[in-house]
Amino acid sequence: MKRFVNAKSRIVTEALDGFLATSPNARLARLDGYPHTKVIVRTDWDKSGVALVSGGGSGHEPAHAGFVGEGMLTAAVCGEIFASPTVDAVLAAILAVTGDAGCLLIVKNYTGDRLNFGLAAERAKALGRRVEMVIVEDDVAIPGAHQPRGLAGTLFVHKVAGYAAAQGLSLKRVTRAAKDTAVVCYSIGLSLDTCTVPGNTKEDYLGDNEVEVGLGIHGEPGVSRIIFAPATKLMRTACRRLEKAIGTSAGRYALIINNLGAVPPIEMEILANAFTKTKLANRVDLIVGPAHLMTSLDMNGFSLSLVQLSGQREKALLSEVGAPGWPGVRAGGAVSVIKSPETGRTKKHKASKNAGVRSVVQAVCKTLVSAEKDLNHLDAQIGDGDTGTTFGNAARVVSRATNRLPCADGADLAGALSDLLSQNMGGTSGVLLAILFAAAGKAYRQNADWPSAMMEGAKQIVQYGGAQRGDRTMLDALLPGLEALLDGKSMDEAAVAARQGADATARMKKARAGRSSYVGSDRLAGISDPGAEAIARVFESIARTVKPRS
Amino acid sequence: MKRFVNAKSRIVTEALDGFLATSPNARLARLDGYPHTKVIVRTDWDKSGVALVSGGGSGHEPAHAGFVGEGMLTAAVCGEIFASPTVDAVLAAILAVTGDAGCLLIVKNYTGDRLNFGLAAERAKALGRRVEMVIVEDDVAIPGAHQPRGLAGTLFVHKVAGYAAAQGLSLKRVTRAAKDTAVVCYSIGLSLDTCTVPGNTKEDYLGDNEVEVGLGIHGEPGVSRIIFAPATKLMRTACRRLEKAIGTSAGRYALIINNLGAVPPIEMEILANAFTKTKLANRVDLIVGPAHLMTSLDMNGFSLSLVQLSGQREKALLSEVGAPGWPGVRAGGAVSVIKSPETGRTKKHKASKNAGVRSVVQAVCKTLVSAEKDLNHLDAQIGDGDTGTTFGNAARVVSRATNRLPCADGADLAGALSDLLSQNMGGTSGVLLAILFAAAGKAYRQNADWPSAMMEGAKQIVQYGGAQRGDRTMLDALLPGLEALLDGKSMDEAAVAARQGADATARMKKARAGRSSYVGSDRLAGISDPGAEAIARVFESIARTVKPRS
Repeated sequence: MKRFVNAKSRIVTEALDGFLATSPNARLARLDGYPHTKVIVRTDWDKSGVALVSGGGSGHEPAHAGFVGEGMLTAAVCGEIFASPTVDAVLAAILAVTGDAGCLLIVKNYTGDRLNFGLAAERAKALGRRVEMVIVEDDVAIPGAHQPRGLAGTLFVHKVAGYAAAQGLSLKRVTRAAKDTAVVCYSIGLSLDTCTVPGNTKEDYLGDNEVEVGLGIHGEPGVSRIIFAPATKLMRTACRRLEKAIGTSAGRYALIINNLGAVPPIEMEILANAFTKTKLANRVDLIVGPAHLMTSLDMNGFSLSLVQLSGQREKALLSEVGAPGWPGVRAGGAVSVIKSPETGRTKKHKASKNAGVRSVVQAVCKTLVSAEKDLNHLDAQIGDGDTGTTFGNAARVVSRATNRLPCADGADLAGALSDLLSQNMGGTSGVLLAILFAAAGKAYRQNADWPSAMMEGAKQIVQYGGAQRGDRTMLDALLPGLEALLDGKSMDEAAVAARQGADATARMKKARAGRSSYVGSDRLAGISDPGAEAIARVFESIARTVKPRS
Repeated sequence: MKRFVNAKSRIVTEALDGFLATSPNARLARLDGYPHTKVIVRTDWDKSGVALVSGGGSGHEPAHAGFVGEGMLTAAVCGEIFASPTVDAVLAAILAVTGDAGCLLIVKNYTGDRLNFGLAAERAKALGRRVEMVIVEDDVAIPGAHQPRGLAGTLFVHKVAGYAAAQGLSLKRVTRAAKDTAVVCYSIGLSLDTCTVPGNTKEDYLGDNEVEVGLGIHGEPGVSRIIFAPATKLMRTACRRLEKAIGTSAGRYALIINNLGAVPPIEMEILANAFTKTKLANRVDLIVGPAHLMTSLDMNGFSLSLVQLSGQREKALLSEVGAPGWPGVRAGGAVSVIKSPETGRTKKHKASKNAGVRSVVQAVCKTLVSAEKDLNHLDAQIGDGDTGTTFGNAARVVSRATNRLPCADGADLAGALSDLLSQNMGGTSGVLLAILFAAAGKAYRQNADWPSAMMEGAKQIVQYGGAQRGDRTMLDALLPGLEALLDGKSMDEAAVAARQGADATARMKKARAGRSSYVGSDRLAGISDPGAEAIARVFESIARTVKPRS
């Protein structure tokens, strides 16, 4: 398994130093004592109030180092990957940041963390420090569990306690605020895959069609597996677990949408949108994320955490902090929609009939729809794999619009096609063809001859697109085909010329325009340009259609 | 391929609505006109200054919608995945935000974007708007490329132009600032895998040991492949490509460290740390990221972007913005290290010799080191897979320290082991064993008998750890073994009792303590608790060692 790491033994110390060197909050430091002592502390802390210390095993970044800063944690104690920090490290953190006002330890409910933080607390007390501890056990995966785990709900406790401490409250009151928050936190996780623990073989126990629900943040298997489903359904599943846990009380809630590690931002946004459509969303006033908050290495999953709101907790969550990992809070989940300005685009073209033209249009559309897979496959080898989809989608739109097209008026027809393609096709080819037809329509109105009109359009493609013949683009099929027609040759001969032009692109060593121009010449060898291939097929399709019936 | 999506045709609109519903900046909206018009605009914009419009294909989140906000973009026009937006959508965006001061379009150098934004600009001009365009071509993958791509360096242009516009500069001056920035931007990408375009078959052309360098952000293959290497070496490779591009001028630079999609935060931090060790780091004054800035769906890679600094550009980059995707800037890459407080932990134990004790210690260490893989494998099936590593690491530390141990003084020896384990072992087992030996040492000093001293330690494990016999923990081997000894049985018999206790854990349906307590009982069946297994092996190892020579 390829990962961006060096030696396993240096993963956490290197990551912490990388964090410290790049964090936009430069008022952070680490205690010396690597590799045993891995403690991140505020440098802008004068011990005048209650100190907040949290931490645990690493592999959960930005937790917990990312939550150190004004208004949140005073120090974070980091263990090795998924392993609690040592008692000595916790003790060092406590001693480094605790003044007369005392210190609150915020600990996720894992035996190791409880023991290490607990022993350190006892030692710190023996050294004369005032220390309290709050345990967070927000996991709702197993109803009535003996020892629920601490998950991303812990961040609500960090934030609320951080606000209380920043307000100058006493250790007793900060502890009370933290404990009151901890008991109304609820979290559930859902993942499409397990995580990869560096140096271990991946335990790949999930089936191709399975999703894990109620999992931990250390690669522990979930309490159940469900069948893979669209994002909306998976989000509803997660929300139902939370609803069961919070019951039907009238309370209002804040939500964390947490990326467990490797979900790309666009998918987290889709999940966020799915959340806004759930029943649970009606009970949520504040949203944190989607963001990486409490990850599990490279886990391809998400978790949701709720906390019940009170006036004080709402104020606490909305307050600004200096901790770089805290993404801010959104109040309310409404999407504002503004009226789009009139772009004055679409001249209404009057539908008219011409059976010959209509059959050509339909044949071309049919050809492009059936070429979709071939063209995508060609493109995937040298570009982004969407040429077939782009042409196919456009062909479907035009095909559906055939009855509304001004088939009896060549200039209007070209104009209508230009509008249709510019509105619906997207991508490079869409606008190139829109330019082609716009210019061709203008030319056809002056001189009702398709080959010369289309050549006028092709020239505009050259001008706007910046590609020349021989640059491995659709022009390499389009220009030879049109030239053949302008030379008075038959449609069959033009199709042969376009085909030869398209096939020749497979021998062009260098693309000088379009996305495949970034690809090494060894990759291009033997692969036709998908745009040129599409044009060749269009010429062939027209040739078959206009052939006089024999 | 399991992904968090719904219908392919709704990916971008759902993601944008999810973004709008959860963005901490609530002063954003979209134009109506889904699915054709996908435009995000500021709602706190009064058209009093120069408007900035950017965009392009989607799949690059948070780009570009995440960079809309005070001080950066005024609007972002989003196409479908990896496909340029339509001319009409770009035109709608321009018309929605452009006042008398005019509008600057910031466009990544892809033919499609150039054409669509270009045509829209021409149409907007025809409607009386003042529009300028800057093309960003920061890719340095192919030296001397005909058409370098626009990559994450584009964000430098957004930021600098955004600052200039916010300062109230004229369209001419904002355009100048943007163009001057665009020509001193340099980017390179590196990835361990290709990205998965929704609905397409993944083109899996990278070998298990290959890394792609100089790739695009649309799944285009890179210009070269190199052999997989540690993070530090891969980072150096990327930096060398940038150094080649910027030459040896004396300029100072800002750097973007961009997550291309699926790299977990901890690995991005390791890469950030690796960057600080490169020669190039000496020329970099400002760092943005590591963060998701310009992604490529789920690509497991990163990119680096440089911009040459000027006084004005530095000021622009450091200014605060209201755009939720901008992570802020770190000035300087130094790591502050603070002296760790004295935890007064280690009583120096005076080394002393006892051949019998020494051979037991060494045998136990050897047993645990050779059990590492077995224990990890057991743990991986029910927990986080690190029991073997945790025990093995501790055994290696103790083994190396054997000569310094007070082997002739049982109480001191137990104390020394407690210190060694609490300083070096980490994890749950580490502190449990530290507690065990601390309590055993205290007991041994009062009554120099190993079985009763160790039983005293085991009782403290019960007290602090919260587990009972039968809870599927190491106690299930430890307690029966010690009880056998206290009953006067031989070490051999005690080892059998410990072994039976460990084996019995495989039949326990429910773990009530430790991480496997979160695992369903069907998963536990037939798998011994790894902690109990370790203890049984320790008893067996001691039995073999203390056996009188026959």
